[in-house]
Amino acid sequence: MSNIYKPKSISGFPEWLPEIRRAEQLWFDQIRTVFESYGFCSIETPSVEELNVINAKGGDGGADVDKEVYVLERLHKQNDDKEARLALHFDQTIPLARYTAQHFNDLVFPFKRYQMQRVWRGERPQAGRFREFYQCDIDVINVDNLPMHFDAEMPAIIWGILSGLDGMENENIQIRISNRKILIGLLEGLGIENITEVTRWIDKSDKLPQDKIAHELENIGLSSDNIDKIFDITSKSSLKETVAINDLMREGIEELSFVMEQLSHLPEGAVIADLSIVRGLDYYTGTVYETVFTDDPSYGSICSGGRYDDLASNYINKKLPGVGISIGFSRLFDRIRLKGNLPSLSMSPADILVILPSEELRPKVMETAQILRKRGFNVETFHSPSKMKRQLAYAQKKGIKYVWFPDAGEVKNMDTSEQAKATPENWTKDD
Amino acid sequence: MSNIYKPKSISGFPEWLPEIRRAEQLWFDQIRTVFESYGFCSIETPSVEELNVINAKGGDGGADVDKEVYVLERLHKQNDDKEARLALHFDQTIPLARYTAQHFNDLVFPFKRYQMQRVWRGERPQAGRFREFYQCDIDVINVDNLPMHFDAEMPAIIWGILSGLDGMENENIQIRISNRKILIGLLEGLGIENITEVTRWIDKSDKLPQDKIAHELENIGLSSDNIDKIFDITSKSSLKETVAINDLMREGIEELSFVMEQLSHLPEGAVIADLSIVRGLDYYTGTVYETVFTDDPSYGSICSGGRYDDLASNYINKKLPGVGISIGFSRLFDRIRLKGNLPSLSMSPADILVILPSEELRPKVMETAQILRKRGFNVETFHSPSKMKRQLAYAQKKGIKYVWFPDAGEVKNMDTSEQAKATPENWTKDD
Repeated sequence: MSNIYKPKSISGFPEWLPEIRRAEQLWFDQIRTVFESYGFCSIETPSVEELNVINAKGGDGGADVDKEVYVLERLHKQNDDKEARLALHFDQTIPLARYTAQHFNDLVFPFKRYQMQRVWRGERPQAGRFREFYQCDIDVINVDNLPMHFDAEMPAIIWGILSGLDGMENENIQIRISNRKILIGLLEGLGIENITEVTRWIDKSDKLPQDKIAHELENIGLSSDNIDKIFDITSKSSLKETVAINDLMREGIEELSFVMEQLSHLPEGAVIADLSIVRGLDYYTGTVYETVFTDDPSYGSICSGGRYDDLASNYINKKLPGVGISIGFSRLFDRIRLKGNLPSLSMSPADILVILPSEELRPKVMETAQILRKRGFNVETFHSPSKMKRQLAYAQKKGIKYVWFPDAGEVKNMDTSEQAKATPENWTKDD
Repeated sequence: MSNIYKPKSISGFPEWLPEIRRAEQLWFDQIRTVFESYGFCSIETPSVEELNVINAKGGDGGADVDKEVYVLERLHKQNDDKEARLALHFDQTIPLARYTAQHFNDLVFPFKRYQMQRVWRGERPQAGRFREFYQCDIDVINVDNLPMHFDAEMPAIIWGILSGLDGMENENIQIRISNRKILIGLLEGLGIENITEVTRWIDKSDKLPQDKIAHELENIGLSSDNIDKIFDITSKSSLKETVAINDLMREGIEELSFVMEQLSHLPEGAVIADLSIVRGLDYYTGTVYETVFTDDPSYGSICSGGRYDDLASNYINKKLPGVGISIGFSRLFDRIRLKGNLPSLSMSPADILVILPSEELRPKVMETAQILRKRGFNVETFHSPSKMKRQLAYAQKKGIKYVWFPDAGEVKNMDTSEQAKATPENWTKDD
C-alpha cells in the first residue's frame, strides 16, 4: 500500500473516457469516409524520422519547431552509436515528402493520399495546443506540374467534412484563402528586401492590432508609404479591386480568382479570399489556406495548408509540386468537447445486453448473443446470474439500450420501457 | 542537387505502400467490428507514460523490457528539469492499469475495453519483431473478483477474429491455454524454491529441445526426479491424466477444465490445453494463452495474454483482477504479407473515375461525381482534359474498376471491358 504511485494526467497528452473516445472514433470515421469518397488513399508513416530527414527540410520555418522536436533515447543505452538518431515527427508533411521520394517508383501520380496520425511537439500546453495530437491531412503531389484545379478541390473537401461532423451543426466556420504570390509580388514590386520578416508580421494580422504591426514594419525599415500600400492590399477581400504591380502579383491574383470561382457552389461565407493570410511555413509558394471559427478567430486556425512548388527536393532529384491541407483534429475536437457539443454517446458500443437468468441458461444466453452478433448487432452477455435489478442497472449505467430476457423471449427498450416478444433471428431495433 | 539526402527505411519501423496499407486498414476494421460486437469499448492512451509509471509495475518481468524502453528528450533542452521523464509505452497493459486506476470513479465495472495502438520496443529487429508495431488488446477488469467465464470468452473472441481475417483462410492456427497455478502448484509441492527461474526455462519449451532444458534445470539445482515430474506434467494436454499434488494445483486444473469445457463449441484443434505454456511476464496468476501457427510454432506467439489477480495495485488501493489477450498485429500481418496472402486490393479506394473530356465539361464532371459520392461511391475526377488513352491508363494503374464517360453517359467496367449507358442517380455496381 505504501508503494502506491497515484497517476495523473500528463500535461499536453490528452486522454478520453470511453464515451468521448467513441465520439472521436465517429469523427475519424466520418473524415476518412469523405477523404476516400474523393479517391484519396491512406498511408501511415512511422512515428519517427531520422533526425537528418527532419533537419533536411531547410528554410527558416524549421527554426520555429526545432526546439519542439522530441528525440528518442534508449533508457539503457548500449553501444549503438552507429544508429541514426530518431525524432518523433512534428507534422505529416515532411514524412510525406520523404515517403514520396523514397517510394517514387511504386506510386502513381498525381499521388493523392490522406494521413491521420498523431504528431508531437514539445511546446507549452495551452487551450487547443497539445504535445501529442492528431492531424488529418490530405495532399496531392504530381511530377513537374500540378493543375490549379486541385487547389480548389482541397477547400471543397474540407468544407464538406467540417460542416458534416456530428457536433459542428451550430459552428460558424470559414475557410480563408490567399495566394502568397500576391503579397510577395507586391513586396518585390515595392523593392522591399527583408520579405520573410515582413510576411511574418503580416501573418500575425489575426492576433495583433494593425497599428502594432505597422510599428514593427517601420522598425524593420519600411517606409510609411509602403506600409500603407501593404495594408491596402492585405485588407482587401475583393480581388477585382486588387491591382497588380508586376507579373508575380498578377499570377497570384489570377490563381486565387480561379480557385474562388471554382468554389462558388459553396454556401455564402464558407470560403473567402483574405489577402492577409500568408502562413508561417516558407515552403508554401502559392495558394494558402486557414480556417477559423468566425465568432472566435483568435482560437487560431483549425485547418491550414497550401501549395508548394517543390516539396521533396531535399530527398529526390525531381520536381514534385503539391497542394495539401491539414485538419488540426485535436484542436477542433477539444473545442467542441469543451463546448459540450459532441454527440452524446453511451460508453459502450453494445446495442443489447442479454440477461443471464441462471447458470443453467448460459448456453442459451451465449447462443442468443451469437445469433444477434452474426446479424450485425453488438451484444454483451451478463457474466453472472445476479439479481435482475443489478443486471438492469448495469445496462443502464453502460447506456445499453436493449435488454434481452432469453427465458421470456422478450426484449425491453430501456429508453421507453416498452417490452415485447422477440426472437434473435428476426428482431430489429425499433428506431 | 548536391544537398539531396536519399531517404531509406528505418530498420524495425515498418511502412507500407498504399495497397498494403488498405489491407492493414481492412484488418483493423475487421478486428474492431468483432471487439465491438462483444460490447468492448475503445480507449486510447497517450503514446507516453511517466517513467515512474512504467517502472512502478514491479516484478522481474520488467527487467526484460527495461533496456528496450525509449524515453523522450527535447532536441534542444530547456530548463524544464522539473518535468517528469516520459517514456513510450512498450505494451498496452501498463497503460490500461494506470488508466483504470486514474479514472476509476468514471468507469463501469466489469470494464471491458479494447485498444489498438502502436507500441515501441528498442529491441534488435528481426523477422516478425519490430521496434514500432501495433497491438490489438482486449481486457476485462473488475473490482474484487472476476468470473472465470471471461477467461473462456477471450479465446472465443480471438478465434472468431483470426479465422475471419481476409487472407487467413489457409492458415492453421491454434490457441494454447494453460493455468499457471498448475505448474506453480507442482513446483511448490515438490519443494522447489527458485520458481521464477524454473518457469523461465519451461517457457522456452517451444524454442529449445527438452534435454537442453533438463540440463539447465539440473544446473540450477533440480533433482532429475523432480525434472522428470515437471516434464511429465508439462507434456500433458489431457487434464484428466493430470494429478494434483496440492490445492493450488487442483485449483489450476479445475479452472483450466472449466475454460476448455466452455470452448468445446470451437472447431477441433482450435484450442488446446498445453501445460508447458507459462508466459514470461510475472503478473499472470491463472489462465495463460499463446497462439501459434501450427506449421511453424517457432515463429512465436501471435496472440498472448492471461489472467492477473491484481493488476493496478501499484496505482490504486483496490483489488482489480482482470483477464486479457493481445493480438501481435504487426507480427501477424507481416507474416501473411510475406506469404503473399493478403487480400489483393487496388492502391486507390476509388470505385469510379469520371473522365474529363474537355474543360467545358468540368462542371458536369464535378456534378456527376458529387451525385455518385452522395450515393456512397468513392469517386475521382480526372484533373485535366488529357487524351482519353492517358485517362484510361490512370484508372488502370490505380486499379479503379469503373470509368465514367459523362459526355456519352456511359460507364465502362475495366475488368470486363463492358460499357453501358448509365445515369449517376441510379447506377449500381455490377458485382
